[in-house]
Amino acid sequence: MSNRIVTISRQFGSGGRTVGREVAEKLGIAFYDQELIEKIAEESGLAKEYIQEKSEDTTHGNWFVNAFSDRNASGMSMQDYLWIAQSKVIGELANKESCVIVGRCADFILRDEADCLKAFIHADMAWRAERIVSVYGEGVNSPQKRLKDKDRRRRAYYQYYTDMEWGKAVNYHIALDSGVLGIEKCAEIIADLY
Amino acid sequence: MSNRIVTISRQFGSGGRTVGREVAEKLGIAFYDQELIEKIAEESGLAKEYIQEKSEDTTHGNWFVNAFSDRNASGMSMQDYLWIAQSKVIGELANKESCVIVGRCADFILRDEADCLKAFIHADMAWRAERIVSVYGEGVNSPQKRLKDKDRRRRAYYQYYTDMEWGKAVNYHIALDSGVLGIEKCAEIIADLY
Repeated sequence: MSNRIVTISRQFGSGGRTVGREVAEKLGIAFYDQELIEKIAEESGLAKEYIQEKSEDTTHGNWFVNAFSDRNASGMSMQDYLWIAQSKVIGELANKESCVIVGRCADFILRDEADCLKAFIHADMAWRAERIVSVYGEGVNSPQKRLKDKDRRRRAYYQYYTDMEWGKAVNYHIALDSGVLGIEKCAEIIADLY
Repeated sequence: MSNRIVTISRQFGSGGRTVGREVAEKLGIAFYDQELIEKIAEESGLAKEYIQEKSEDTTHGNWFVNAFSDRNASGMSMQDYLWIAQSKVIGELANKESCVIVGRCADFILRDEADCLKAFIHADMAWRAERIVSVYGEGVNSPQKRLKDKDRRRRAYYQYYTDMEWGKAVNYHIALDSGVLGIEKCAEIIADLY
């Protein structure tokens, strides 16, 4: 396969999505974000809102309980079904063209693709808290609690479907602190490595 | 403090030491490796061979047992004593001049220094196994077992003295896979970030 893929995993609020968009722009390759959700919706027949919420973490308070409680006769939960659909779509995209894919365990789904650059973007709690308030317009009422909660859900989701530890350096080719290095610099380094 | 420090933590066999040397050369700043051991020997009165072996991991099969069994009347083990001496030396070096320091938990010891760039170098088992045989001349009899053992000891040492998890991306500003990216490229990226 001659396509080259960049996967970007990231802590919530770290600017990983922005890094991904800038990398794609610099390289002149596709950036899959909203369009990825649309493709997964086509593949699965599920609503975009559901996919947006459930394709990399969950809004349920107790996800593990929920993941096991809504299974159908085949033992598959709705989230398992979504996982299969998104794995299929991500695999197809990687076969179709060079691109940047943010989140959704793409690093794991494409683990056997030789030409996949796997990045992880993180930043400290204070930097991310300020950012989700100023950039995402999140309520100022305890943004740190919101971050911890999102991280916890994202970690649980990743671990459940990949059996790997989220945020462990050895699982990525490059991991960068966007709070210290800056979003633009992170994008530059990743684009340069491509 | 106007000095700028680069700390490089690394998996055994990943080439992190070579990356550090190249970063220092590129930047024209000091590289503390063998000289660091000499300074710790002066400070502590301990033999260089002992420091070489014990200043970042241990040769004992059951380190945790050993760490608690050789304590003197003050409750301090020889390894604790060494930890204090090396913390002091590393702190003094950082105050003296800009430099690159490899290993020895320098990232943790200098955690309150604002101008410290913290890097982690890792690579997969197969790449490191080949490297320790060809570069270090380690016996070919199960290099993978040797790597696992060294990683385990280094991790235990780091966790014991820092209460932090070794190899977790969030603990470093940058983490790089030297096996995929190459030692030279890792050095370039870190020197460029400095």
